[in-house]
Parts: sequence; C-alpha cells; structure tokens
Amino acid sequence: MQRELAGFGVAADGGVCREALTEIDLAARSWLCRLLPAASYEWMVDDAANLIVRRAGTVPGLAPVMTGSHMDTQPMGGWLDGAFGVIAGIEALMALDDAGIHTRRPIEVVAWTNEEGTRFKPGAMGSSAFAEPGRLAGFLQTRDSKGETFETACNAAIERILPSAKRSPLGHPVHAYIEAHIEQGPVLESGQCRLGVVTSIQGVRWYEVEVRGVSAHAGTTPMQLRHDAVLAAAELVVRINEAAAARDDGNLRLTVGRFDVPGSSINTIASHVGFSIDLRHPSDAFLADMEELIKRVIRKQTRCAAEIRTLMQRAPTQFDADVLSIVENAVAATGAPYCSLGSGAFHDAMYVAEVAPAAMLFVPSRNGISHNPMEDTDEADLVLGTRALAAALVTLANQ
Amino acid sequence: MQRELAGFGVAADGGVCREALTEIDLAARSWLCRLLPAASYEWMVDDAANLIVRRAGTVPGLAPVMTGSHMDTQPMGGWLDGAFGVIAGIEALMALDDAGIHTRRPIEVVAWTNEEGTRFKPGAMGSSAFAEPGRLAGFLQTRDSKGETFETACNAAIERILPSAKRSPLGHPVHAYIEAHIEQGPVLESGQCRLGVVTSIQGVRWYEVEVRGVSAHAGTTPMQLRHDAVLAAAELVVRINEAAAARDDGNLRLTVGRFDVPGSSINTIASHVGFSIDLRHPSDAFLADMEELIKRVIRKQTRCAAEIRTLMQRAPTQFDADVLSIVENAVAATGAPYCSLGSGAFHDAMYVAEVAPAAMLFVPSRNGISHNPMEDTDEADLVLGTRALAAALVTLANQ
Repeated sequence: MQRELAGFGVAADGGVCREALTEIDLAARSWLCRLLPAASYEWMVDDAANLIVRRAGTVPGLAPVMTGSHMDTQPMGGWLDGAFGVIAGIEALMALDDAGIHTRRPIEVVAWTNEEGTRFKPGAMGSSAFAEPGRLAGFLQTRDSKGETFETACNAAIERILPSAKRSPLGHPVHAYIEAHIEQGPVLESGQCRLGVVTSIQGVRWYEVEVRGVSAHAGTTPMQLRHDAVLAAAELVVRINEAAAARDDGNLRLTVGRFDVPGSSINTIASHVGFSIDLRHPSDAFLADMEELIKRVIRKQTRCAAEIRTLMQRAPTQFDADVLSIVENAVAATGAPYCSLGSGAFHDAMYVAEVAPAAMLFVPSRNGISHNPMEDTDEADLVLGTRALAAALVTLANQ
Repeated sequence: MQRELAGFGVAADGGVCREALTEIDLAARSWLCRLLPAASYEWMVDDAANLIVRRAGTVPGLAPVMTGSHMDTQPMGGWLDGAFGVIAGIEALMALDDAGIHTRRPIEVVAWTNEEGTRFKPGAMGSSAFAEPGRLAGFLQTRDSKGETFETACNAAIERILPSAKRSPLGHPVHAYIEAHIEQGPVLESGQCRLGVVTSIQGVRWYEVEVRGVSAHAGTTPMQLRHDAVLAAAELVVRINEAAAARDDGNLRLTVGRFDVPGSSINTIASHVGFSIDLRHPSDAFLADMEELIKRVIRKQTRCAAEIRTLMQRAPTQFDADVLSIVENAVAATGAPYCSLGSGAFHDAMYVAEVAPAAMLFVPSRNGISHNPMEDTDEADLVLGTRALAAALVTLANQ
C-alpha cells in the first residue's frame, strides 16, 4: 500500500514529487478514500482540506484517538516522509478490522495538508490550523510561485473529495495523538535501533537575510570599488557557519538552504542576494544566543548593506509523558531494539501537541537520508513501526 | 539626436529597453535611416541585419573608413551604451556635409546587430559575423526566450528596412575602424579625463563551477555528516576571491555573477550549486595563471565534489598602433584632458579588429555606471568625443 501511494508522483530517479494540493496530491487523496470500506468508516474534510477518516468507538461521546501525518512531499522528495505515517494509520485500522478488535474510543487517521511548506509557506498549515483555527485566515491568503492562493487550492481540494468525504468543522477534541514517521536522520541506524520513541522536537528559527550591493559591469569595475552582493552573501554564509561551528555542542543544526540572486547574469556584479537560515537546537536559550551571534556577524560585514528578519520561530516541544509511556510499552513489546530520541525535524505532531497529549514513533532512515529520492527504510522496520503504532492506538482508545 | 534615439524604448526610470531586433529596435533603425539626405548617402543592410550608411569618397575603388557601434541595449539599460557610437558617427557625417569636406575614401557608419547578447546569445553577433561570415550560420539557429530564432528576427528586420536600404553582402574590406563608446567604468572620471584613447580590450574567460553535495534534512543531519553544496560553493567564492585579491595587480576583474541552487528550499541541505566566474585581465598569461590558481582552490576543497569548465575565452585585443596614433592626435587637438586606457568591457571593435586596423575612443561614464538606467555622460563630453571622432575619421579617410 505504501508503494502504491508512492506511485502518485514517482519520478524517474525513484523519488516522489507530490507537492501539497497539486493534481497528483488530489489524486492520491481520492485513492486513499477508497482504501477502507465505506460502510464502517466516515471520511471527513475540513476547511484546511485536512482529510480525516474515523473508525467508530463503542462508547458514544468519547473524544477520538488520532494518528496520521502528511501526504505532500518536497519537490524532489522521497517515498516515506509523511506518507509512512498516513499509511501506517490506515494499515493499523485494517489490522483491527481483521482481528475483530473494537475500542471504546473512535480512532481517527488524518492526512494533514501542506506539511512541507514548499508550495505554500509556512509548512504544517493543516495541523497548525487544526490546533488553532484562527490561524487559517492568514494561511488562505498565501500564494504559490504561480500566484494561486492557498484558499483556491484548498477549495478545489475540498470540492474534489466531497463525493467521498463529508465536510467537517476545523478542529475537534482529541484524546491523544501519535504520529509515526521516518526519522529522517542517522541516530536510530547508527545505534542499531529499529524503532524510536520520540520524546521531543527541537526548537527552530527561520530567518531571511537580504544583502544589497550595487549592480555594475563585471569587466569595467575595479575590485576595490565593488559592492558585490554575491561575494558579501558568500562571506556571510561562511562566517555564520564558522561562528556556529565554534559554539556547536553537537546538537546544533544550521543550514543555508536557499541562496537567490534575482536577475543574475554572468557578466554583471549582482546587486541583491537573499538567503535563508534554518537554525535548530533542543534548547531555546541556545537558539537565542545563536541568533545574537548571527546578528553580530551580519552587523560586522561592510561590503554591502545586509539585514536579517525572522520568518518563523518555534520553541522546543516536549511530548506528553503518559502517551510516551504507552508508545514505549508498545515499542518494547515488539521485542526489537529501540531507543528514545529527540526529533531534529518538525512534524505535524508539534502543532497537535498544543491541544492534545501527543507523542511520536520513528522508524530508521537508511543512511539518515530524507528530502531526497534516496530516502528509504527496510520494509521489516516499516511493518514493525506499524505494529507498535496499532498496539499503542488500541491502548489509548480503550482508556 | 542622441536624446531622440533614447526615446525608442525609454522607461519610466529614465533607462532604455531596446533589445536587439525587437519592434522598438526596428522603429529606431527606420528613424535612423531618415537622418541623412537620401541623395548623398547609400544605406545598406547585410545578412546579419547590420545597418550601414556610406558617404562616398572622391577616389573610386578605395576601401572605406568605418565607425559605429550598436543600438540594442540591456533589458534594463541606459541611453548611451552603444547608441553614442552610432549617433556620434552620424553627427560626424553631418558635420562634414556642413563644412563641405570631402574625403578620398568613403566613410561608413554602422549599427551592429545584437551586441548585448541578452535576447540572443552570444553577444556581438553582427560584428562577429561581419568579420567572419562563416559564423552567421550558427547564430541564425539561436533562439530568444520566447523561442524565436535569430534568423526569423533578422529576416523581419531586413524586410522592414528594405525600402530605405539596399541589401548588401556580409563583410567587406575596411581601411580602418574607430568605435566611439562610453567607458562604462570609473577610470576617466577618477582621472578627470574627458576623453580616452582605448589601446586594448582585456582578455576574458568565462567558467561554470558545479558543486555537488548530498541533499539532506536541515533539522536532522549533524553538521559533521553534511555535504552542503551551498556552504561548499560559498567557501569557494570566498577563497577564489581571496586568492585573486592576493595576486591582483590592479587590473584583475573577477566576478561571480550567477549562483544557482536548483530546487532549493529553506529546510533542505542543497545537493547542487552552479556558479559562474567572469575573469578579465589585459594579459593572457595572467589569465592563464589565475585559471590555474582557481583550479587549485577548487581541487583543495573537500566538502563536496566540484568541477570547473570553460564556457568561453577570448585573448586580449591590442588595437592598431597607427589608428591609435591618429585617434590620440584628434583627441589631443580638442585641448581637453585625456588619457590612454584599456577597455574592461568588450565591444564590436574586438571583432572588427580581426579584419581591419581598429581603435576606440571613450567618453566618461558618470560614477562609472553602465548597464543601468543611471548611466549618463555630460553632454559637453559627448560633443567633445564626437568632434575628436570626426577629425580622426577625416584623417584616415584621406589616407
């Protein structure tokens, strides 16, 4: 089933391109809705186009236990990032059906909208709006690179799914949330663990740095008279990395992912560069110190004008102790080697944790690779993760 | 007249957009043909759509003296780059008419096609094909960003001008060529010179550097396990600039104008960066040394795989000593302060120099600015340059 989903957007190199609410994402959602028997499941779509399927509980009126993840991918992404958590949830429900297990509470599987944040910014719009519906209004106005609004894309997605799902309000009480996901890093593999209990998500701050120089002719302008935005920005990238390396306690993650030179040409000194900084660490105080350090580096450069602004910041998330203990018991019961770890990536669980007790469960990523066509996990580990997820869901749904 | 030409393609910011063989360029060419009395001048258009006007000489059969430049501009260019040299030539002819001066040899003014190379690549197609007609076949197949071929655009231009000009073969013997141009750099202004005798055009080498790392998740991948293509490329840009600065004799020009991160995203470690290097110097041996130095810097970096390839290289052009001496005498005769200098930019004269004794004459660029709407020159200096050009043309045309 996991392989079937990967077929929606598969690329020649084995990677997957299924950006949020594109035609291929909508086709994958329609396919998803046909996986469970319509008679015993209720499919719902909310104002953020989150797609939720509910398996009824035996005691009326109890809040559901929820699991899931996202189905959208990076532009050149892999087959498991997000997709694993959705399919693991669906397979857990099927396993309960096969085993004839009924639970006191309903169990819901959700496919959150636009977690990656590459088509519409910021990421995790679906889970974020679910946790706080007031956030949706702002999201609806954002546009993709072709100028289409998130609102237009959402409405098209909702309309497309409506024959298979009923319209439901955004946000509802959740008894507990577990998200299964690939680790997207090397920790489990290097520790020879086949499952991971995810205790926290590190804090993250995103910045945009704008460097403004003076456009001039590459052939005529003496080196010492230049205000070269590419050179100034390259120096900043190097110095910021050097300054960060000197402070790194082993847990720092600093990445310049975007480096844009608008209207660039080979024989023109660039007047403008914009680059991004993605900064992460388990300690919010450490992040604040690093931010000051980065700002000092930027203030000290004199080649061009430069300024930094914060695009997003989010303090570290600590998952719920009770849900963690249930996840750990389910993981331990598989008999496979496991460990506890923090998450380097953020996930929809970060937002759901604002309104419900939550935790996560990881399976290893081969060579630690993700956001890449090479992303992969041993099938046996996918099965193991799905089994542990199902067990934890049943325990929580019988509370 | 210079201001009138700028009216063809003038933008709100005072800049000019008149890309090669666009409607506005064709309109400017038709306007140009009406500037001189049809009875005493012969207009010609060749297979590269170069537009040439000939003022007859008194001795039959002598090769003409030629002057001119280009009328096309950068997409966001100024009013004088190229245009000055064409209008200065036309005004010189008018001045000869007014003064009743006749010369032994014909004098021709040419508007070369597509010097800038922004609509069709490479630049200087018109003068390059004039010098070596065998080059035209390759140029004709190139396409602009809308898919139109240079051949289609050329044919339309030729047809449009045919009522005013007769079709002529591509290339013919030229006794001598002088091109008047704005400096596009700060040398004349900083030396308080009002005219410049251009002795040479510096050599240029263009390179593309490809840096290949490994795409990975920004939040999960420890710093020491990364192969970050943006960081590796930024380090190369900085180190190449540092190495170049240590060797710079004051005449080196090194520019990284493009820096592309395909498929970049804020939270993904980039797997691939391509950046350009534009390297110029008056000495070809110096360029060869610098190329070796750059290659050593690239070989020494270990963060990612990196390779460099040459996109284009052109040895320095040394202008003709006899023509230079005539230009210098004409410049000195104006009584204005002048100096000799090399050209940082390349020009149509670089190609004409392959087949005829050639030289150039510069007027200052205010603040050294060109390829920019702010491009400007004092009107008095434009007049001075035109006067010196006319005097030099007469001397050459009486040889």
